[in-house]
Amino acid sequence: MRNVRLIIAYDGTDFHGWQRQPDEPTVQGCLEEALAGLTGDAISVCGSGRTDAGVHAQHQVANFHTASTIPCANIVKALNDLLPPTVQVKQAEDVAANFHARYHVRRKTYRYRIVTAPICSPLVWRYVCHHPYPLDRERISAAARLLEGEHDFTSFAAVGENEEGEGESGVRRIFHSRILWRPRSSMLIYEVMGNGFLRYMVRNIVGTLLEVGGGKRMSEDIRDILSARDRSRAGPTAPAQGLCLANVEYAAAVADTRGKAG
Amino acid sequence: MRNVRLIIAYDGTDFHGWQRQPDEPTVQGCLEEALAGLTGDAISVCGSGRTDAGVHAQHQVANFHTASTIPCANIVKALNDLLPPTVQVKQAEDVAANFHARYHVRRKTYRYRIVTAPICSPLVWRYVCHHPYPLDRERISAAARLLEGEHDFTSFAAVGENEEGEGESGVRRIFHSRILWRPRSSMLIYEVMGNGFLRYMVRNIVGTLLEVGGGKRMSEDIRDILSARDRSRAGPTAPAQGLCLANVEYAAAVADTRGKAG
Repeated sequence: MRNVRLIIAYDGTDFHGWQRQPDEPTVQGCLEEALAGLTGDAISVCGSGRTDAGVHAQHQVANFHTASTIPCANIVKALNDLLPPTVQVKQAEDVAANFHARYHVRRKTYRYRIVTAPICSPLVWRYVCHHPYPLDRERISAAARLLEGEHDFTSFAAVGENEEGEGESGVRRIFHSRILWRPRSSMLIYEVMGNGFLRYMVRNIVGTLLEVGGGKRMSEDIRDILSARDRSRAGPTAPAQGLCLANVEYAAAVADTRGKAG
Repeated sequence: MRNVRLIIAYDGTDFHGWQRQPDEPTVQGCLEEALAGLTGDAISVCGSGRTDAGVHAQHQVANFHTASTIPCANIVKALNDLLPPTVQVKQAEDVAANFHARYHVRRKTYRYRIVTAPICSPLVWRYVCHHPYPLDRERISAAARLLEGEHDFTSFAAVGENEEGEGESGVRRIFHSRILWRPRSSMLIYEVMGNGFLRYMVRNIVGTLLEVGGGKRMSEDIRDILSARDRSRAGPTAPAQGLCLANVEYAAAVADTRGKAG
């Protein structure tokens, strides 16, 4: 059996998230349906993690096992013809038999886009959170930086659940957490890279950062919120539509060792 | 009666174009419904011109007459609350009683976005035409430039109809017509500014330019197509979703003379 890794982009607007559900359109469901159409087999696709309803992806990674001998370039073309324009496969590649899109993740990067202008352009609204209120750049940037390092993020997690479905430790390592301002633009981007994320963690962080930027909290409050390990201490969950999975990275040894087909 | 000018942006994906239709969602219909909700009166909105189904706008202009005394800033806020996120009013302004959004247009600018990469990102597909074929930059740019000046554009018009609904002369003046390439991007933009456009003119020009860029025609063929005044000589109509009304300009004397309210 081959083990094929896919890099996928999607517009989450019309999907009930990544994970297959019986009667709702999901990204995983779409991909599995297209793969069944392509190979004639029921194929199970394993993603690097779930994304929630309405969340987008520029670079989601998944893998699947197949006995099919269709070359990877043809898999990309054929899948994209079968998939809706809101889900497209950017790359397919044969990888080592033991590569697992979820277990072997080393780093993930999310970006969250916020438009602070009074009016949000209809040409971007699907991909941003419209927050037409003043934000203090220094405060929000300082607060974002306090999240870097290894912390227990239970205060920022959906109660009792995390993205990887393990539901246990809330400890994650954040490699960077920062606000990117675009000059002459009312858009700001929160970018966070970590070794894993609890469910709703990025959106709960953004909801809290917006409170800091708006003057409702101090930047330093982030420390107390983290140590409290109590969801009620953090801010509200920011809307899904601003969030995008920007990258998923693997250890070079796992990701780049090509498997043999068949 | 006040005469109020609106600047409007919209995502045309889910609309059957600008012009009100009895049983289909249209941008004009949306605006008139929101204005009725705001003022309690049946208000007719006059746009600078129709856009076809699926065409977007960053800067469409319209005007309406009303006896309402609601200040313009409040009109913007209230309309945007009533309108869907796919249509938003960027500005409302009292203008001279004789200002007419269609008759007084001086220049319009359209942009048409084309993605030439093999795969079109799901995060932009609503706003671009996906054309995954090589394009010769010099040929397509030279062809675009041959459209500048005053010409009879009948060969590029929908048969028997033009955007302004006059259906007579096909002569229009094109102030500029050029291809903008983005460095390190697979997106190219065709930008055209003119004193008016026949129906489907920009999309028929783009369909022809893509044939030139792909080597199917010579740049110089543009001259023959123009002089033929025959729709069958030009290329196919490019898809609506790549087209965006980028700007509408008026003579300063008309547009900037403020009217008195009431």
